[in-house]
Amino acid sequence: MKKMTPLKNDLLLRAARGLKTERTPVWLMRQAGRILPEYRAIRNSLSGFKELVETPQLAAEVTIQPVDILDVDAAIIFSDILVIPDAMGLPYEMVEKVGPYFPQTIKAESDLKKLRIADPGDLSYVYEAIAITLRELDGRVPLIGFAGAPFTLFCYMVEGGGSKTFSKARKMIAQNPDLAHRILDMVTVSTIAYLHGQVDAGVHLVQVFDSWAAVLHRSDYAEFSLPYTRRIAEAIHPRVPVTLFAKGANFSIGDLATLPCDTIGLDWTVPVEFARSQAMNKTLQGNLDPTALYAPGKEIVKKTREMLQAFGGHKHIANLGHGVYPDTDPEAVKIFVNTVKEFEYEHA
Amino acid sequence: MKKMTPLKNDLLLRAARGLKTERTPVWLMRQAGRILPEYRAIRNSLSGFKELVETPQLAAEVTIQPVDILDVDAAIIFSDILVIPDAMGLPYEMVEKVGPYFPQTIKAESDLKKLRIADPGDLSYVYEAIAITLRELDGRVPLIGFAGAPFTLFCYMVEGGGSKTFSKARKMIAQNPDLAHRILDMVTVSTIAYLHGQVDAGVHLVQVFDSWAAVLHRSDYAEFSLPYTRRIAEAIHPRVPVTLFAKGANFSIGDLATLPCDTIGLDWTVPVEFARSQAMNKTLQGNLDPTALYAPGKEIVKKTREMLQAFGGHKHIANLGHGVYPDTDPEAVKIFVNTVKEFEYEHA
Repeated sequence: MKKMTPLKNDLLLRAARGLKTERTPVWLMRQAGRILPEYRAIRNSLSGFKELVETPQLAAEVTIQPVDILDVDAAIIFSDILVIPDAMGLPYEMVEKVGPYFPQTIKAESDLKKLRIADPGDLSYVYEAIAITLRELDGRVPLIGFAGAPFTLFCYMVEGGGSKTFSKARKMIAQNPDLAHRILDMVTVSTIAYLHGQVDAGVHLVQVFDSWAAVLHRSDYAEFSLPYTRRIAEAIHPRVPVTLFAKGANFSIGDLATLPCDTIGLDWTVPVEFARSQAMNKTLQGNLDPTALYAPGKEIVKKTREMLQAFGGHKHIANLGHGVYPDTDPEAVKIFVNTVKEFEYEHA
Repeated sequence: MKKMTPLKNDLLLRAARGLKTERTPVWLMRQAGRILPEYRAIRNSLSGFKELVETPQLAAEVTIQPVDILDVDAAIIFSDILVIPDAMGLPYEMVEKVGPYFPQTIKAESDLKKLRIADPGDLSYVYEAIAITLRELDGRVPLIGFAGAPFTLFCYMVEGGGSKTFSKARKMIAQNPDLAHRILDMVTVSTIAYLHGQVDAGVHLVQVFDSWAAVLHRSDYAEFSLPYTRRIAEAIHPRVPVTLFAKGANFSIGDLATLPCDTIGLDWTVPVEFARSQAMNKTLQGNLDPTALYAPGKEIVKKTREMLQAFGGHKHIANLGHGVYPDTDPEAVKIFVNTVKEFEYEHA
């Protein structure tokens, strides 16, 4: 483990730990990416998305762009949750305007032979990108590492791509729960080693994205997602703060809050008071509707202020409730960021 | 208005009205369709989905199939929510395994000239299908009519097809709310006339499907969906019982329950106790996870019983929490239906 450069801005980490902060920290999910012309220039010079993910110098460069341009309070390493299935033996392709596609999927026990526990060495391109980013950031803001939650990665590995219902993945849960658990276990073991590698490389906080948790009944969430996310949190939380975001699984927030984590991410549809009642003493992250950034500037300011006031200025990290949509104007993002930075809370 | 054949089984209507029933009524969303080989035989003899929707004799036939084969307590007219945009001047195509596609969409005010208030005469094929169905059902079970909620139809008309985020439709809401309201108003006027036509033709109950309501923040739901659903409910509820299903918009159930309706539909992710606390005295419909029907028979029985017991046997219409998935075995559906019919509630 390397000696860390002291952070000039550690608002994110203090807010995650529930400490008082001078102001609310702010960053955006998917801030490193398609919204920035500077990102698209680099992306368009390459053969594809994966080349960018797998080239540490360039991944570091696009990771830092939003810190320079949008003045956010954290960087998040540019990568993809699908590097884990990829390293486990299921390569993905990123199809422009469609999303990820897996030529091979897991349909039956016999497909398990395609899978291995990911070798951390296969993911060294991510650790290198983290090391370069930290060097170039020079302590300006914390760097967030991340991984997909095992259930969400399982969805892709069974389904082979995006889906509105993930009914193939859920069919396996209904028909062959043992196989589902075996896949989830392998993903979990791979992910824990991967996140240890990210922390070794120096990330200051880790976020776990359970992007498709919303398709699960609460009892299935408790059986097929929560225990695996728990193992990850138990492994990583002793080392760095952990944020868990199970998008749309709003009736499982109370279950999620029992895990060793600091922060719970919220989508834009869950009322803050409901989330507070479920998430106990955890810090909450979110949750402006990403389409609010399509509105005129005055509206963005108004909606951001309403969101901030609802969280009340404590145990809160400002963010959107979903990754920023790709056709969002960077100027709108700046209005959002600046509104958070300048906001003065009304106290009852 | 024709004289109605007296119903031999009116469980659905009595449960909708909150009356005590000998047992809980049961039907399934999308029961008329791809799960039945008898349906696929008819469908495959035709040029496409729309031909089936627009041929009254055949639409009636597939409407009655699940009553004959699955022994459900209601029929629902075989049709599609997209007949309204179609009749308004935006024709849709149903692309096999992909879903609906609109060659033309509404992007700007200038596109409004493509739209007209639907002429009820253009939808007479639906009323004819209803008339034939009622004659052939001969009072065995009630017939449900339906329409899409204006917000959900607006989503398709702007987006041009399915989407995970409907960000184009939500972008219009953010950038040009007046245009959104004008489209929603035209859809609402068209839908009210259409549902009056269905009631004139004899349907016993009407369900309004707001399939994409879950993408809206509660305040946007309150502005861009609720008022239009309200106008529909106010127009139709004096004539027949009305069921409202805003899939996934679970933090708006309390708002929905303020409308003049009898029944609120629930998806499979919302806990019954939460829904009861929000929906006041309304009857609830749902909400078995459709993937429960992929499980072995014993599991289907167990999960169905748990679901029934959670609703407690009053003010409840048993259903899935989503349309039955197309690769579901009809035998699994029969197990579900029979489990509901035979269930004996435990009373505290």
